[in-house]
Amino acid sequence: MQKIFYPDSVAVIGVSERPSNLAAEILRNLSRFGYSGDVYAVGPRQGTVEGTPILPSVEALPSVVDLAVILTPAATVPGLLDACGRRGIRRAVIESGGFAEYSADGRRLEEEVEEVARRWGIRFVGPNCISVINLENGLCLPFARLDARGAKTGPVSVLAQSGGVSITYFILLSEAGLGANKLVSMGNKADLDEVAYLSYLFEDPGTEIICLYLESIENGRELLETASHSTKPVIVQKANRSEASAEIAFSHTAALANDDAVVDAALRQAGVARAESFDDAVALAQGLSLPPVRGEDLLIISRSGGHAVVAADAAAAHGFRLMRIPESFAERVRELFRADVIAPTNPLDLGAIFNFELYGQIVEQSLRTLEPDAILLIHTYSPGPESAVSEKLARRLGQLTAEVERPLALCAFAQHEQIENLRRETPLPVFTEIEAAVRALAASRERHNRATRLRPLPSKPDERPEKVHALVADTGVLTTDRSLDLCASFGIPCAELAVVEDEESALVAAHVLGYPVALKGLTSEATHKSQAGLLALDLESAEDLRVSFDRIARALEREKSDAEPLRLMVQSMVTDGREVLIGGKRDPSFGPVVAFGLGGTAVEAVQDVVFRMAPIDHGEARRMMDEIRARHLLSRGRGHQPIDRETIVRALVSMSDLLITCPEVVEVEVNPFTAMEDGGAAIDARALVAGQRA
Amino acid sequence: MQKIFYPDSVAVIGVSERPSNLAAEILRNLSRFGYSGDVYAVGPRQGTVEGTPILPSVEALPSVVDLAVILTPAATVPGLLDACGRRGIRRAVIESGGFAEYSADGRRLEEEVEEVARRWGIRFVGPNCISVINLENGLCLPFARLDARGAKTGPVSVLAQSGGVSITYFILLSEAGLGANKLVSMGNKADLDEVAYLSYLFEDPGTEIICLYLESIENGRELLETASHSTKPVIVQKANRSEASAEIAFSHTAALANDDAVVDAALRQAGVARAESFDDAVALAQGLSLPPVRGEDLLIISRSGGHAVVAADAAAAHGFRLMRIPESFAERVRELFRADVIAPTNPLDLGAIFNFELYGQIVEQSLRTLEPDAILLIHTYSPGPESAVSEKLARRLGQLTAEVERPLALCAFAQHEQIENLRRETPLPVFTEIEAAVRALAASRERHNRATRLRPLPSKPDERPEKVHALVADTGVLTTDRSLDLCASFGIPCAELAVVEDEESALVAAHVLGYPVALKGLTSEATHKSQAGLLALDLESAEDLRVSFDRIARALEREKSDAEPLRLMVQSMVTDGREVLIGGKRDPSFGPVVAFGLGGTAVEAVQDVVFRMAPIDHGEARRMMDEIRARHLLSRGRGHQPIDRETIVRALVSMSDLLITCPEVVEVEVNPFTAMEDGGAAIDARALVAGQRA
Repeated sequence: MQKIFYPDSVAVIGVSERPSNLAAEILRNLSRFGYSGDVYAVGPRQGTVEGTPILPSVEALPSVVDLAVILTPAATVPGLLDACGRRGIRRAVIESGGFAEYSADGRRLEEEVEEVARRWGIRFVGPNCISVINLENGLCLPFARLDARGAKTGPVSVLAQSGGVSITYFILLSEAGLGANKLVSMGNKADLDEVAYLSYLFEDPGTEIICLYLESIENGRELLETASHSTKPVIVQKANRSEASAEIAFSHTAALANDDAVVDAALRQAGVARAESFDDAVALAQGLSLPPVRGEDLLIISRSGGHAVVAADAAAAHGFRLMRIPESFAERVRELFRADVIAPTNPLDLGAIFNFELYGQIVEQSLRTLEPDAILLIHTYSPGPESAVSEKLARRLGQLTAEVERPLALCAFAQHEQIENLRRETPLPVFTEIEAAVRALAASRERHNRATRLRPLPSKPDERPEKVHALVADTGVLTTDRSLDLCASFGIPCAELAVVEDEESALVAAHVLGYPVALKGLTSEATHKSQAGLLALDLESAEDLRVSFDRIARALEREKSDAEPLRLMVQSMVTDGREVLIGGKRDPSFGPVVAFGLGGTAVEAVQDVVFRMAPIDHGEARRMMDEIRARHLLSRGRGHQPIDRETIVRALVSMSDLLITCPEVVEVEVNPFTAMEDGGAAIDARALVAGQRA
Repeated sequence: MQKIFYPDSVAVIGVSERPSNLAAEILRNLSRFGYSGDVYAVGPRQGTVEGTPILPSVEALPSVVDLAVILTPAATVPGLLDACGRRGIRRAVIESGGFAEYSADGRRLEEEVEEVARRWGIRFVGPNCISVINLENGLCLPFARLDARGAKTGPVSVLAQSGGVSITYFILLSEAGLGANKLVSMGNKADLDEVAYLSYLFEDPGTEIICLYLESIENGRELLETASHSTKPVIVQKANRSEASAEIAFSHTAALANDDAVVDAALRQAGVARAESFDDAVALAQGLSLPPVRGEDLLIISRSGGHAVVAADAAAAHGFRLMRIPESFAERVRELFRADVIAPTNPLDLGAIFNFELYGQIVEQSLRTLEPDAILLIHTYSPGPESAVSEKLARRLGQLTAEVERPLALCAFAQHEQIENLRRETPLPVFTEIEAAVRALAASRERHNRATRLRPLPSKPDERPEKVHALVADTGVLTTDRSLDLCASFGIPCAELAVVEDEESALVAAHVLGYPVALKGLTSEATHKSQAGLLALDLESAEDLRVSFDRIARALEREKSDAEPLRLMVQSMVTDGREVLIGGKRDPSFGPVVAFGLGGTAVEAVQDVVFRMAPIDHGEARRMMDEIRARHLLSRGRGHQPIDRETIVRALVSMSDLLITCPEVVEVEVNPFTAMEDGGAAIDARALVAGQRA
């Protein structure tokens, strides 16, 4: 990978003198960005571009180059790559489009390219991309004209599934004053993919923060395991959220949409910040370039009361506390200030102070004696004399925060030109939106709090009881009793039940379990038991049971397949607890995922469910319970008695075990699981085993 | 008001030659912005500022001025204003701080100022503000140094409760290329308030769009009635959402926080766009400056597939459809395009076309033949030759969209300098963030769809039945039976019930109503009937009823006050419908507000409730039902039978009538109201009548 980003020599293939030739623009970009390695041009027609003579073929190259950059019609690429292989070239960037993203023929061409690369041991970027920029050595390979003047070299590297997006990041990072390091437009990822680039960037000394723009995540689990093992912050902008956009992504970079809620949960779990837009990604990168935010105590300092109010709103929205300022500090501040116009509150309003020297002193005092987890300084200033003193202030604050290693977010309101000057004068990131600054500080705090490494999935599932083998031996939907059995095998407590095939056995079972009981018809076919008439609750007596047995048995004959025997389930009634949903699914990208929410139809309807990648431990299960909107209902049951929260915690961890140990289980849901004052019980469950879906 | 924004002469009071004098900066701003009226300076010490001699007193003014601008210590303001009054001056801007926002003494000073103003018939802006800018005549009165170079005159006027915020708007609107017209920092609003300014701006020919920054809304109903009667779009940024920020606002401009969900609902109902940040407000203003978006059909055109995917996500998030492009159009496009690299899909990907002339043709074709409700054109371009052709394209698009009167949002990705040039070349707003552009188009669509005027509240409530008078005669919490009675008086159907005082009457009532029945103890004291043991459900027989009567009567003796008689309620059991919440409250700012959500504790917990200002009609009630997250549960009951949606609609309108007709009712809630296959019934209700709260 090093030779892709730091080649000593580059051959650009597909160059001609025609004004519309795109490969020629690559030569010009290399020259504009000051790439100092050897550059060669290859193309069918003689000529010279940017002082470089066009050679007729790869064979004509005077020596083996480190990197070949190919921008020719798709059909010619396999042959040219083969020529590169023969010439001893082992790294390539294929910018041409017209492959898998375009047509079935293109897909076959792409497979041919992969085959040629394998044969010669060539590693390559693309195809269908505008490729690589490394600002450290001026390696600027996109075929779009770029301007080196505006470029700023900095700590942020970018991996993007789209060329246009990588250029957008390049411009925004440069203009934000933070600066970019390496940018890759990954294209179709036929060889190198995000995990490969990410692993390289984690080791790359020039890269401190990584932004990923993705339209699909095919190997989410691996990606996030990699990300969670690095000390470098990762920001992901995951586009292609909706079905509508999934269509475009398919024709664009052959992407598949992920379930967006799972993506959200998985990224958070891995300590990865999710960006909502390009500007948001840049703001998050600014925030993550600061020393980490270790807690919730925020101090807001502002010259404008209005900005302070907006900042306090943002702080509340992002889980910050406005720390109390102790009286002793207030005294010190009053000595520095004119006491009659300043109230030592948080936000601290500096509106009546026009001496910016004092601002620096106040920030320094705050950092050293108050020790806030973060400071947000909102600085509004005028053109003219205030600009120069503001730049001086920003320089001083840059030194100060580096010295005390605490985060200070500087949000400036002034004309664009002034902000540009400010950015030149200070290493501090300069925000221009209050919400963005607070959100960036919150992302840093989240990352710091969630510094847990994802454990890899076991390559071979653990041993499991013989019973489980039998339960997951068939594919398809398991009946309720078997689904409950599966859950019970992993320690999830279930309501007592007996499976019966005739009325007399049902009566015996009910007698043993004790009335009231529930009676349920068992089949893999019906999805809604109550709708299909397969359910009777609260049966108080043998007489009730007989009537219901008769009705359900008849309904079951209609619903079940002929191959299924007549089976019913008598179950103890559990009431008065709190009904929750405990589920699991196997995500195609992120693997086994545990779900938790309130039980019942109403709460499913409002989508108050949280997810985690398995495995989870008890702490993580508790955090899941604290994340649903209706969390305050989890302390008491319907009858207002306290409930046993830990029984839910254990059931969630058991669900995680089940998913890890039974790769055959595609989906499983306990709903409701009823938590009571002491313990809890699964009442209903559904499991779907490998392969065919119901 | 005209003389405040367009004075022929201005006297600035409080000027001195000292470098730190703030009033002098007002004179300099007037000069920088080219104000051409007569300017006078008044101050205690002789001297000259900006060529204007300082006069010793108001009396020394050579003639009566249209406007006095006062920036002196608070204590001197009443005297100076009185001097102005004597001198015949009838308009003032009071910039000084130290009034009600600062202390109790300050509050008294502010009252004195109001008194002086009343005496002389003086109308004034402030106090505690940085006042007024009118870019049309260069009237720039803030005491902060401002730069006329960066200022752009345009269609947006701004009313802000904070001076710093008004300056921020001034800069952002100018830099966005849209431009500002009049800006007011309203300060403490001792005389002129947002409703007064708004009424003026609605008549002001230079103002086409109005942005309001507010930290409190004391007269929300009046404000929104005013806003909903104008054809000019209004954007509100309402800060001070949280309790934490309410504290600061109090010390800042003596603001009180509103219930944020009510603010949200009320603004939407009045067709007012709510901005989430300064940048968002500017983007909304850009969108509302376009011809209106009349429907959901959006066409996205982009040079970068990645940007197209991001745009499709944003379109889905904001309720747009990506309209299908008919084959006939596709044919036309293929004639213009090289057919082998372009798929005529939506988003339309122009990545393979480098001739920007064609872009203009494609947009024109699309506007004229496809007639989309809006077009989003995402244009990414390089420095150099592409910049000039992009500017030409933008000019052409500006003419084109003006001609066809359809909205086109142009979102450009390029370096800041290029964007600045683009903005100079086209009257079209140029967005720099895809999400912002789509959100702005959505705001225009929302405004167009919600073009209903708010009806004023009746000044005198309608006639009402004698029974209602009796029910609301006492203050405090009404018992369940009386609350239900009140609801029934306005046509909300209630479950059948009888109030009884002894066991025998209860048995008779149950016999008449028919078993099963519910039994409830009645008192104004207990808040949770089930917790207090005042509730028995599903009583199947006289025996059940006797046992429960005994228990509840004993519990009631404990709970109720001694003055209350022993009263219980026998009620028919209603089951199997869909339980909803129908409520009303009297908001201190927005007046009577109707609430709707699913009934039961779980759904309250997830805050799935929507609000509307009363009065509402049946259409509005239906829209409320369509807005809750769990809306799909409103077609069927718990037993999956269909339910009578119109019974809910009628109950919501009845609740609205109740609130309008009974100003004494502070809060009222029916929960649950059970909707059944045919009709529905209120099961439980609580009402709180004027004055004391429970």
